[in-house]
Amino acid sequence: MSVKIIGTGSYIPSQIIPNKNFLNHNFKNADGSSIDNDNETIIEKFEAITGIRERRYASSNLNASDIGFLAAQKAIEDAEIDKESLDYIIVAHNFGDVKYNHNQSDLLPSLSSRIKHLLKIKNPKCVAYDILFGCPGWVEGVIQANAFIKAGLAKNCLVIGTETLSRVVDAHDRDAMIFSDGAGATIISKTDEDGGILSHETATFSYDEVYYLGFGESYKKNNDATRYIKMEGRKIYEFALTEVPKAMKACLDSSGEDIKNVKKIFIHQANEKMDEAILKRFYRLFKTPAPDHVMPMSIQKLGNSSVATIPTLFDLVKQNQLEDHALNKGDIYIFASVGAGMHINAIVYKY
Amino acid sequence: MSVKIIGTGSYIPSQIIPNKNFLNHNFKNADGSSIDNDNETIIEKFEAITGIRERRYASSNLNASDIGFLAAQKAIEDAEIDKESLDYIIVAHNFGDVKYNHNQSDLLPSLSSRIKHLLKIKNPKCVAYDILFGCPGWVEGVIQANAFIKAGLAKNCLVIGTETLSRVVDAHDRDAMIFSDGAGATIISKTDEDGGILSHETATFSYDEVYYLGFGESYKKNNDATRYIKMEGRKIYEFALTEVPKAMKACLDSSGEDIKNVKKIFIHQANEKMDEAILKRFYRLFKTPAPDHVMPMSIQKLGNSSVATIPTLFDLVKQNQLEDHALNKGDIYIFASVGAGMHINAIVYKY
Repeated sequence: MSVKIIGTGSYIPSQIIPNKNFLNHNFKNADGSSIDNDNETIIEKFEAITGIRERRYASSNLNASDIGFLAAQKAIEDAEIDKESLDYIIVAHNFGDVKYNHNQSDLLPSLSSRIKHLLKIKNPKCVAYDILFGCPGWVEGVIQANAFIKAGLAKNCLVIGTETLSRVVDAHDRDAMIFSDGAGATIISKTDEDGGILSHETATFSYDEVYYLGFGESYKKNNDATRYIKMEGRKIYEFALTEVPKAMKACLDSSGEDIKNVKKIFIHQANEKMDEAILKRFYRLFKTPAPDHVMPMSIQKLGNSSVATIPTLFDLVKQNQLEDHALNKGDIYIFASVGAGMHINAIVYKY
Repeated sequence: MSVKIIGTGSYIPSQIIPNKNFLNHNFKNADGSSIDNDNETIIEKFEAITGIRERRYASSNLNASDIGFLAAQKAIEDAEIDKESLDYIIVAHNFGDVKYNHNQSDLLPSLSSRIKHLLKIKNPKCVAYDILFGCPGWVEGVIQANAFIKAGLAKNCLVIGTETLSRVVDAHDRDAMIFSDGAGATIISKTDEDGGILSHETATFSYDEVYYLGFGESYKKNNDATRYIKMEGRKIYEFALTEVPKAMKACLDSSGEDIKNVKKIFIHQANEKMDEAILKRFYRLFKTPAPDHVMPMSIQKLGNSSVATIPTLFDLVKQNQLEDHALNKGDIYIFASVGAGMHINAIVYKY
């Protein structure tokens, strides 16, 4: 028995937001003071660090549950399974449905129930729940699906990551340029094939790190009660560089696979420079250089869509839509993520 | 090996809100029209149906994560375990932290991370995540903890239900009188003892029922963008009466236990009349009358605190704080819940 990804799908919003769209923003420092540089310089620096040239925003009529549904539809089609055979629908997100131009999260009913409704699934035995776990929510959903399959509770699970971060960003915060909208979905199933999920690792660092990512007031300090996604970029960078490679190594060690067999690393698309540094440190733990083309990246064009980045990236590679990247049977892959909580997780997977 | 509840705790807010506090409310019908009856009659009718005489509201300085933490502290103490030995912290809620007099849900970081932080747990291997599953969220969290223990991922799990519904009710909706604040926590552990979780059952009805509980505008129709918890009471009542007894029976059947052995039924405190009708229908499925004192109730004094009602009720009985009710070793109990999603679940448990 193995637990495998038997179908993938994603929804990449059609609305492209290039960096130049931020040229007329009134960016501020965290204390509300003005930033010395002009916006052109700010954007240049931003692009140099994060690698982000453009990002996608969902159209105003679509919410997180809608785009999650659109990704799920494709994953079910790709898996060629009867949707009524799903035992679980696990939806990872962090803000619920936030309507365009509203500040309230709509969480009732939960997004998984909305998506099950949109999929027109009748079977009441298909249990739909939402998980909040920061950006690593989709990876954790896969780990939970794996546990349910191993505990004999499920055979087929639909795991979705969906987010509309464009609706929770502070327009006066440079970090607004990082975040984007998107959804990725995966069917995780019990199979008789070889391979699948070989090992997994999860850690929650909340003693000192809990508020590295959180909700806060606008940098404009306009006494508006609305709060926005806020992050301590420098602290996250250092934390991720120390802890993510360690978790990836622990996961690979417990899989029993050799580092040389790792063909792809699907890492959360948070920041290009950070991801490259994590990769370097990970390989350094094995005293070996990182091979070429081991880390597919989509952040340049898609930005950071939180829970959606990994399933979307995996789907892009699976559909041969990312140059120099392809999936091959028998390959070993690592999925790894880090985000609000602060959580880190990883999966070693044999394709 | 069995999976048992080895500790419980709850936080019942000290602020008592009697029904008379609603006497000066300007209640409206769903279409915004005035209600024919005066408030005294409205409240009398409300009390006759729901059984609710008073409810508790958290003080303005406490959020859902704070009261969840206070309940968790007691559960850890009651279980007499080292908090660093927890493998999971699973927190069920539906609205996140909603600050007093604010309308925005604060979900970043998730409540489980905040609670882990407040508990000062250092162990990064203690995985903290939130589950959104309507009122049955705490029961589902226990089912997930059971799965993780069975899959070999965990030995000790802290499962919390916490909610501040007083902050998401529409003051112009009579249903505002139903909802309350509270938190309950439980330690679920792998043990060598006999009994524990014998069976469980979960169902998600989202085809026709998905919006029986949802988010909607105020009945005052004042063009305020803020949305509130809204429910189709009549439809929920009929749905619950049909489906909850069936799920409870399926769960009891799969446990192999006889109906005569069932000593207590801990049912979600949604509405006294509805709960009594569910109990009656459940026993009718076994062609036997419901015995006396089989269904402890707290709704009269605590209202409906969603995910918190069952763990709080169980804790009250365990601490001998509910007249005519006590727990005895070897007894069979049923936990059952129904709520937004619409979800139904049940656990058969040997104490």
